[in-house]
Amino acid sequence: MESNSNILPRPLRGIIPPMVTPLLDRDTLDTAGLERLIEHILAGGVHGLFILGTTGEAPSLSHRLRCELIERVCEQVKGRVPVLVGITDTSFVESVSIAYKSKDAGAQAVVLAPPYYFPAGQAELLEYLKHLTPELPLPLFLYNMPSYTKLVFEPETVRAAAEISGVVGIKESSGNMVYFRQLQSLLNEKPEFSFLIGQEELLAEAVLLGAHGGVCGGANLVPQLYVDLYNAACSRDLSAVESLHQKVMQISTAIYSVGKYESSYLKGIKCALSCMDICSDFLAEPFHRFRRAERNVIRRHIKDLGLTDKR
Amino acid sequence: MESNSNILPRPLRGIIPPMVTPLLDRDTLDTAGLERLIEHILAGGVHGLFILGTTGEAPSLSHRLRCELIERVCEQVKGRVPVLVGITDTSFVESVSIAYKSKDAGAQAVVLAPPYYFPAGQAELLEYLKHLTPELPLPLFLYNMPSYTKLVFEPETVRAAAEISGVVGIKESSGNMVYFRQLQSLLNEKPEFSFLIGQEELLAEAVLLGAHGGVCGGANLVPQLYVDLYNAACSRDLSAVESLHQKVMQISTAIYSVGKYESSYLKGIKCALSCMDICSDFLAEPFHRFRRAERNVIRRHIKDLGLTDKR
Amino acid sequence: MESNSNILPRPLRGIIPPMVTPLLDRDTLDTAGLERLIEHILAGGVHGLFILGTTGEAPSLSHRLRCELIERVCEQVKGRVPVLVGITDTSFVESVSIAYKSKDAGAQAVVLAPPYYFPAGQAELLEYLKHLTPELPLPLFLYNMPSYTKLVFEPETVRAAAEISGVVGIKESSGNMVYFRQLQSLLNEKPEFSFLIGQEELLAEAVLLGAHGGVCGGANLVPQLYVDLYNAACSRDLSAVESLHQKVMQISTAIYSVGKYESSYLKGIKCALSCMDICSDFLAEPFHRFRRAERNVIRRHIKDLGLTDKR
Amino acid sequence: MESNSNILPRPLRGIIPPMVTPLLDRDTLDTAGLERLIEHILAGGVHGLFILGTTGEAPSLSHRLRCELIERVCEQVKGRVPVLVGITDTSFVESVSIAYKSKDAGAQAVVLAPPYYFPAGQAELLEYLKHLTPELPLPLFLYNMPSYTKLVFEPETVRAAAEISGVVGIKESSGNMVYFRQLQSLLNEKPEFSFLIGQEELLAEAVLLGAHGGVCGGANLVPQLYVDLYNAACSRDLSAVESLHQKVMQISTAIYSVGKYESSYLKGIKCALSCMDICSDFLAEPFHRFRRAERNVIRRHIKDLGLTDKR
Repeated sequence: MESNSNILPRPLRGIIPPMVTPLLDRDTLDTAGLERLIEHILAGGVHGLFILGTTGEAPSLSHRLRCELIERVCEQVKGRVPVLVGITDTSFVESVSIAYKSKDAGAQAVVLAPPYYFPAGQAELLEYLKHLTPELPLPLFLYNMPSYTKLVFEPETVRAAAEISGVVGIKESSGNMVYFRQLQSLLNEKPEFSFLIGQEELLAEAVLLGAHGGVCGGANLVPQLYVDLYNAACSRDLSAVESLHQKVMQISTAIYSVGKYESSYLKGIKCALSCMDICSDFLAEPFHRFRRAERNVIRRHIKDLGLTDKR
Repeated sequence: MESNSNILPRPLRGIIPPMVTPLLDRDTLDTAGLERLIEHILAGGVHGLFILGTTGEAPSLSHRLRCELIERVCEQVKGRVPVLVGITDTSFVESVSIAYKSKDAGAQAVVLAPPYYFPAGQAELLEYLKHLTPELPLPLFLYNMPSYTKLVFEPETVRAAAEISGVVGIKESSGNMVYFRQLQSLLNEKPEFSFLIGQEELLAEAVLLGAHGGVCGGANLVPQLYVDLYNAACSRDLSAVESLHQKVMQISTAIYSVGKYESSYLKGIKCALSCMDICSDFLAEPFHRFRRAERNVIRRHIKDLGLTDKR
Repeated sequence: MESNSNILPRPLRGIIPPMVTPLLDRDTLDTAGLERLIEHILAGGVHGLFILGTTGEAPSLSHRLRCELIERVCEQVKGRVPVLVGITDTSFVESVSIAYKSKDAGAQAVVLAPPYYFPAGQAELLEYLKHLTPELPLPLFLYNMPSYTKLVFEPETVRAAAEISGVVGIKESSGNMVYFRQLQSLLNEKPEFSFLIGQEELLAEAVLLGAHGGVCGGANLVPQLYVDLYNAACSRDLSAVESLHQKVMQISTAIYSVGKYESSYLKGIKCALSCMDICSDFLAEPFHRFRRAERNVIRRHIKDLGLTDKR
Repeated sequence: MESNSNILPRPLRGIIPPMVTPLLDRDTLDTAGLERLIEHILAGGVHGLFILGTTGEAPSLSHRLRCELIERVCEQVKGRVPVLVGITDTSFVESVSIAYKSKDAGAQAVVLAPPYYFPAGQAELLEYLKHLTPELPLPLFLYNMPSYTKLVFEPETVRAAAEISGVVGIKESSGNMVYFRQLQSLLNEKPEFSFLIGQEELLAEAVLLGAHGGVCGGANLVPQLYVDLYNAACSRDLSAVESLHQKVMQISTAIYSVGKYESSYLKGIKCALSCMDICSDFLAEPFHRFRRAERNVIRRHIKDLGLTDKR
């Protein structure tokens, strides 16, 4: 029954892939690719869809295109799973604006990393959340992403933020498991507060330790693998966990490590999706798609991994 | 004759203050304050006006407000000096959009720091400039601001960028004078390429060494001081330079160092402008204006410095 | 049988506490405290003792005192457990010198973080290991500690280093579990290569995932807790793991977070040991012991945690 | 009269080259090269000699070799110029030890960067200086080198340190001229406190602005150039300053920028000295001398610059 998905589960559990944004050029969606990609991901049994995150290249996209994407995705998903929309922006007003657009289109929640130009202190960051959250028409997930925002949500800030009505969870992408461990007492006190792990290399252990799920980029490529790993971890089937985790590591090693820049992850996923004939590999500036040499490496790795290579 | 100012001087020389954006709240301009501020700055004899930079809190402002500001400023300046507009954005498309808005409103140039969410490599940064510059309807100044963008325009990138038609200068705000020294051979080869220094503490020496001018935040407060210092440096009047530089350092020490966060500079200038009865001290999130304690310190310093304190 | 411990187990497994160095002043050992501390730790059933690491303040100590410590520790331990000695130094020659001193005194292995003044590249770091290891008279553990050395042993460097005869393991203290996951294929290929985790907050999961043990600072205070947690993880007793992990987190939260500097961890452990009447809390420069206010907090936490407070 | 140089000038003025340490291997001085190098440098008319700094690879050298170097240098210099010795060490006791060795050998002053393993706070750093300075038998220069020590002497710390008896100056190597400007009021209040600039690209302007001299690595190669530039700046001969500064920039560009690591500066100087037949180009680990390809580039640049290439 579709209407159920309009109510965001508390806590949100499972695999919520951070969808890439298929592009024909820097301001044009690859709409056919987008349709294929959404169906490809949903067919894997995922528990939600997160658009306009880092993997979705949100900061590189125009506001117009972001709005078009939100509408198209919500319309196509049609409530089959909750849609979460990234509203991270250096401007408070723009974040609120995208949140309203998300609400109007039928999304279930929004996701926010700290504003990332001016270096706010933790007290300022908390005050920012206290001002922002009441202005939002949808529940809010925090997004800890210090490698790009240069600002961490310190554990004490998360604890205080969790007291704000409307803040319903956190997506953690720092890779620092000490941080997760420090937040666990919070999780015990607030069982409805979602903890989602961003780095798929840590999905297995995070779920074993009590995280509610993962926002795994590789689920753009092979969504069922991550769903299977999540389920194995939930049911404490350690040998299945180990075997599925190995496959996740193979994808991470093969697809995210080609080329020399930090953007290898993003370029690798888009290139692989293109090789799999799902969508275009165009990236918005400041990045560009892999050239022929890197593409050949990705194509070979896809074949070795047993993923479909149609091109 | 006003029409002259529609042609951007090559190189652009002199004092081009980075104007603060007077706000009543996070999405409402203090229009009366804005008028007073513009006239206050122009009365100091400055050589240009730079809006929507870091000092102008551009990343914190909505696109709508940025557009309103561009229009109001251009209309009021009426060609008395060139207006430069910051178009820095993580989205290529949004940068181009603001550039067109600037052109339509009558601005003379645009200013661009690197996109600051995704960590581009230098080759990617150069390619970005090669794609962007031809799309812009106005001449472009590069803006080196690594403390906030986390990405430097390396000297070799500046050298290559200076070959792109439309790139007319650089505003340097890293404080690293070795960088300036490394760029000087470029300046010798391209006498029309502007080098403007961002940190007012270095204005005196930079101009003595060949820089064409400065983008000095303190010129919001006392524009004539910076113009006088610039003129003294141009005419090699070293004793006047020394005496005026001392006053600049007093402002820097007294106004930019109150409070504990990196945002002291911005809060200090806005607070001082408010104490001087020129415009509101509201700051957009993630910052907030100084509370009473810090404001009292600023007010005392303004009095000590002999600036008018009307409130 | 004591003689067994002269042969370093391969892989080395279990809890190997990084011992603090009890000091009466900056160049005088607290020899009585040292004796008590060693017996206190060994009584907890630990599997080794690591001296002159970060927790041991090695970089702050004179070479003379380091040598005295090595001798005293080896003499007192008398082969009951393997002794590992930190030889990290910016000087290759001094590292070799301490390694020989360790061998002569009866230690079983040495531990080395990258030289930490000059910023070596990874190729240089690997070459450094290729030069150094053959000069050492004892097996070598790598020590990944980027927060202090500013240089990480990249996974590919560890992989190459593991091929050098004499390199027998790694102590990982970055807290980045993705790094651990990336090294696991190495561990599968080289079952004798030890992987020890440095951050006690991650001990439980690291051992569950295949690490061989931990170098846990809190084991200076309550060694048996960490041994019990290690054993529970080895035997896959997940409910015991969870319960013991909670106690570890309580110590981490209560003892390592007092005071405002990054040195809180080190000051907290030494202060707690002093409150427990085990050894002096003197710290070598650039640090100093907690003053009365922080000491009172530590004493209260020790009482709350049920640790003995004799002073 | 030699005895004059035994009294350290206050302030110390002029060019004090940071001497490289000629090595045959990692623990053997190139004594013949050392003699030639000292005479080569002194023949340029320099005003002092700084050994065991960053350029001198001090952190990579054994304590024994450091002591041998101190003795040999002091003996050969024979009071012709003051000798300053770097005593930077992570261990307080070792710093004091090298200071006594320096005093005994006849050096005139010591130079200290912050201890660089443990991250001290500014209050701890100042306390460290208050403890250390009274223990030293020679006057102390502070050495601000944040790129390697990761810790800056904040202006307020320098101001407080300058009140400690025995602290006589600072060598500034951050390249941040705002920092210099912030320290200038201190210099005005304490005319005997030396301010020496570390980066030769900034020598000209620093001396024009009131610095007392420079610690210029290039003065290992062409000492007279830096002395001439210093003299031109002191006498305000701006056209000579400009011309000599150009030559300094050519050396910086040609010699310090070969190869891909941050160590290019150090490798370039040693390689050039070797090409000039002055001393060996061996570098202690973690670095190594330039291989043939880079050496050929350096040799060509030396020829282009008109420096003698005897090999």
